[in-house]
Amino acid sequence: MKTAFLGLGAIGARMAARVAAAGLPLAVWNRGDTRADEFMRANKARRATSPADAARGADVVITCLSNSPDVVSILDGPDGLLAGLDKGSTLVDCTSGEPATSRTIAARLAERGVKFLDAPVSGGVAGAEKGTLTIMVGGEAAVLDRVRPVLETFGQKIVHCGDVGAGHTVKAMNQALLAIHIWTAGEALVTLVKEGVAPAVALDVINASSGRSNSSMNLFPERVLTRAFPRTFRLALIDKDIGIAAAVARQNGVPAPMLQLGADLFKIAHGELGELADHVEAVKLIEKWAGTEIA
Amino acid sequence: MKTAFLGLGAIGARMAARVAAAGLPLAVWNRGDTRADEFMRANKARRATSPADAARGADVVITCLSNSPDVVSILDGPDGLLAGLDKGSTLVDCTSGEPATSRTIAARLAERGVKFLDAPVSGGVAGAEKGTLTIMVGGEAAVLDRVRPVLETFGQKIVHCGDVGAGHTVKAMNQALLAIHIWTAGEALVTLVKEGVAPAVALDVINASSGRSNSSMNLFPERVLTRAFPRTFRLALIDKDIGIAAAVARQNGVPAPMLQLGADLFKIAHGELGELADHVEAVKLIEKWAGTEIA
Amino acid sequence: MKTAFLGLGAIGARMAARVAAAGLPLAVWNRGDTRADEFMRANKARRATSPADAARGADVVITCLSNSPDVVSILDGPDGLLAGLDKGSTLVDCTSGEPATSRTIAARLAERGVKFLDAPVSGGVAGAEKGTLTIMVGGEAAVLDRVRPVLETFGQKIVHCGDVGAGHTVKAMNQALLAIHIWTAGEALVTLVKEGVAPAVALDVINASSGRSNSSMNLFPERVLTRAFPRTFRLALIDKDIGIAAAVARQNGVPAPMLQLGADLFKIAHGELGELADHVEAVKLIEKWAGTEIA
Amino acid sequence: MKTAFLGLGAIGARMAARVAAAGLPLAVWNRGDTRADEFMRANKARRATSPADAARGADVVITCLSNSPDVVSILDGPDGLLAGLDKGSTLVDCTSGEPATSRTIAARLAERGVKFLDAPVSGGVAGAEKGTLTIMVGGEAAVLDRVRPVLETFGQKIVHCGDVGAGHTVKAMNQALLAIHIWTAGEALVTLVKEGVAPAVALDVINASSGRSNSSMNLFPERVLTRAFPRTFRLALIDKDIGIAAAVARQNGVPAPMLQLGADLFKIAHGELGELADHVEAVKLIEKWAGTEIA
Repeated sequence: MKTAFLGLGAIGARMAARVAAAGLPLAVWNRGDTRADEFMRANKARRATSPADAARGADVVITCLSNSPDVVSILDGPDGLLAGLDKGSTLVDCTSGEPATSRTIAARLAERGVKFLDAPVSGGVAGAEKGTLTIMVGGEAAVLDRVRPVLETFGQKIVHCGDVGAGHTVKAMNQALLAIHIWTAGEALVTLVKEGVAPAVALDVINASSGRSNSSMNLFPERVLTRAFPRTFRLALIDKDIGIAAAVARQNGVPAPMLQLGADLFKIAHGELGELADHVEAVKLIEKWAGTEIA
Repeated sequence: MKTAFLGLGAIGARMAARVAAAGLPLAVWNRGDTRADEFMRANKARRATSPADAARGADVVITCLSNSPDVVSILDGPDGLLAGLDKGSTLVDCTSGEPATSRTIAARLAERGVKFLDAPVSGGVAGAEKGTLTIMVGGEAAVLDRVRPVLETFGQKIVHCGDVGAGHTVKAMNQALLAIHIWTAGEALVTLVKEGVAPAVALDVINASSGRSNSSMNLFPERVLTRAFPRTFRLALIDKDIGIAAAVARQNGVPAPMLQLGADLFKIAHGELGELADHVEAVKLIEKWAGTEIA
Repeated sequence: MKTAFLGLGAIGARMAARVAAAGLPLAVWNRGDTRADEFMRANKARRATSPADAARGADVVITCLSNSPDVVSILDGPDGLLAGLDKGSTLVDCTSGEPATSRTIAARLAERGVKFLDAPVSGGVAGAEKGTLTIMVGGEAAVLDRVRPVLETFGQKIVHCGDVGAGHTVKAMNQALLAIHIWTAGEALVTLVKEGVAPAVALDVINASSGRSNSSMNLFPERVLTRAFPRTFRLALIDKDIGIAAAVARQNGVPAPMLQLGADLFKIAHGELGELADHVEAVKLIEKWAGTEIA
Repeated sequence: MKTAFLGLGAIGARMAARVAAAGLPLAVWNRGDTRADEFMRANKARRATSPADAARGADVVITCLSNSPDVVSILDGPDGLLAGLDKGSTLVDCTSGEPATSRTIAARLAERGVKFLDAPVSGGVAGAEKGTLTIMVGGEAAVLDRVRPVLETFGQKIVHCGDVGAGHTVKAMNQALLAIHIWTAGEALVTLVKEGVAPAVALDVINASSGRSNSSMNLFPERVLTRAFPRTFRLALIDKDIGIAAAVARQNGVPAPMLQLGADLFKIAHGELGELADHVEAVKLIEKWAGTEIA
């Protein structure tokens, strides 16, 4: 199956490398040269000159960009994806994007006989490298079956979630839960410190009790208590993700006060802590507001 | 060590039974007759006629009531605990109570040479029965060491959290996290259902990803998706607990918008769903507001 | 100036009647017969058979519908507005709608040489009847100048707010402030009642102090304390309006936790109190949650 | 009526000056010398050496401090108020304080035959100077009648709100409404600016419509649009006030999500903007978070 891969970011480059390593014919494209240069040095692929050039002749075109507006931005014009995508081909968007935008894209592609799947991933850089990503897929099941061999080069758990947009929504909600678990544990631990309780002791109890989460069991002991705050996943991205979750709730008329509040708190944290901050560093804003450290 | 146990509720009765089974001399008291009658039929203990009578001669007096005001209500008067507690004895309050109230109680007891520990438990009825409770203790470490043999009859993991009130605070924060994890997963899943995603599929992905929690891994699959909603722990109690967490944050000048919002949402849910509702049934209010079911 | 008016609801019918009374040639259309029948009995106008028919030959076409999706729903097809609007004419949308949707509509009209203004009104049924409405206008100033004679038949204060969408945004924000002022006064007064303070006494003080608002000065004394709750403006509509305000904030990346929370609270109130409830009846939900009445 | 006045802050000094100007025998006390020196230069009064000394022989003792803990801090010890207050005298606390603390103080005074009124004021420095303050009184009506002549030297509208604590609660709620009106108008105007609407135009419309408040009609035009932000009332104090309002709601079991969120937002603003910031400067934090100015 001839494949094109657009978006060679930290995760995207590793996903594309696995496609190449599996021996599938591959064309790659990235906005800007550095990352594409780097990819070409380490992998066997054709380097495309534009999204249209990448898409031409491909059975499966994969996009892995920062957000849905970025995907929209490479659709049109003589160099755009729409100019290159062949009838009968499939666009698989691995971006953590917006369901409504993907539905609009899917409708435009359908007019040209091109299929669309939204297929955001989880599992991080390590998962991409090892090919153990979880992939959440929205779109027709039959289309997923057709492109599955490509997805299996980098994904282990491939879940069909529903129609177009369903993959994005599941991804956004997972991220929203993660964000809120981090924030709430931060509020709780800062208060405990103010009351004179050592955070390691509190976490020891909570992690043996009903209030535990992935955040309290892994992120806080490894990243917050140690003050290491490694930069593995950007706060800017989780801000975008929980913002999508909140917007989807509002579009559906679902009162979701926690999601809405969480989205605003992460937007504030993103603004205060900057583009490079890790998602767990949101805790630092809680600490600043409280005038104390979780330590 | 002569022990008194006041409060033979669902968990308290099982804790007291383990004290009796360990062969410690035991006096018990409960407001109202039924539960005390029942306890006396199954266990070896002296039945006290009042809190004062229970406390008289005891080395360790354990209270396990609904809330801190209930503890305060049995302190004074000729039949009250203060009239019976011997100098040198220790009051261990296993109630899930308020740290500020416990500090006031501890100060009053100190005037009479009586020690105080707050020692709320987690692990539920099953843990009480098997003696595997987690006990979160606030107060002097030396006092805890002295009463530890009694606590070990029903507790497995006994954690010294800090000064008086620390046990209550850790308990309240665990419950607050639990409550918010339930509520937020509810908001997320209701929205996913509106978007056409099957909740079991969404949970399957989330529980393999970073957004997972004890709530998403255990409570939702077993209780919500099945619509079983077993009544194991009352919504009224978790409302009280997260209310304590929110009040402690406010008393410490910690901005904690998530805890505050969570506390109000559970207060609303408690009012709407009634005294008998289980804590996980809070999800039903989210479903009602959204006009859809997580199914 | 030949005018068409679509949407003969409570306010729309009175606005259209003023256009007719001013002697302007008028065509009217309403979905469903009853209101149009009623209008024709009392006013001089041509009754159009469809939106297209109403628009044909008109210089100014005014829509006054429930929401932006309703406006979109009458644009297309052989009977739709787009089929009837003449090049050089202007569509003036008095609906309390969404700025983003209006921008899309304006772009579609521009392709046909038709101008667009969003022009929501405030002042209620009484203001429409007397021709004293405030009109908030978004779009080109020159276009507003051209249609001003028509708007002056029902509006007194006509304010040019900015580009297309600006009128909708100003309207939505006014409504959001109104909604939040009502809700917050409700929370405050319910709490005061619980503390034993008579609400009339509290309002007397607040309305002489810095915490006063149109809500506390007019709505609460006349509608809440009297328990009259007249139905003058539907809760369903203010829910829509504050929802637009919250969505616009989110679209602009503005953290607006109060607007977001307010939007969810009014969505909940709308669901709980139904389609016919007045906007001030939202207070009844606060009373229910608190278990007390502001009386 | 012999009067003592404790607390010669910006408002307190002006209130005390009016008591002196009315010819009532007056003793004054302030923590620290500067303000008392200043007061003695301009007014006729006895300068007391301690709270006890001030209270001795007085019929009415007025406190006007920063908060309830400050009042508690001058009660005990040989120099404390309790050591000086005569049986039959009345303590009038004009502090914007906490109802629960005042109830505790009142109970302690009652044991000694001393009456207590909470009597916070509104109207600012200007109102204190002119004697036109509004006074919100909690306590026995008969006691208020007795001290009314003293209160009338600085107050114009004297309102009996209910039992002890009622004055504090009404004051706290007025301030909470003020705070939330400021914040919400800030969110709305920042969003309008992002949408390209001039804030003066938006305010012009809102102030002619249903969303208007004292904040939108006076504070925003005079202080925000001008960027003057005069420092007339400290953000630190309104943070304290809305914190009291939120805590009273929680103590009464009233779900009040807006009050709780507002209290946290003002606590954050206070922390970020410092002790000297004016209450209206809270808007600057909204502007920072949104990355835009209301101008």
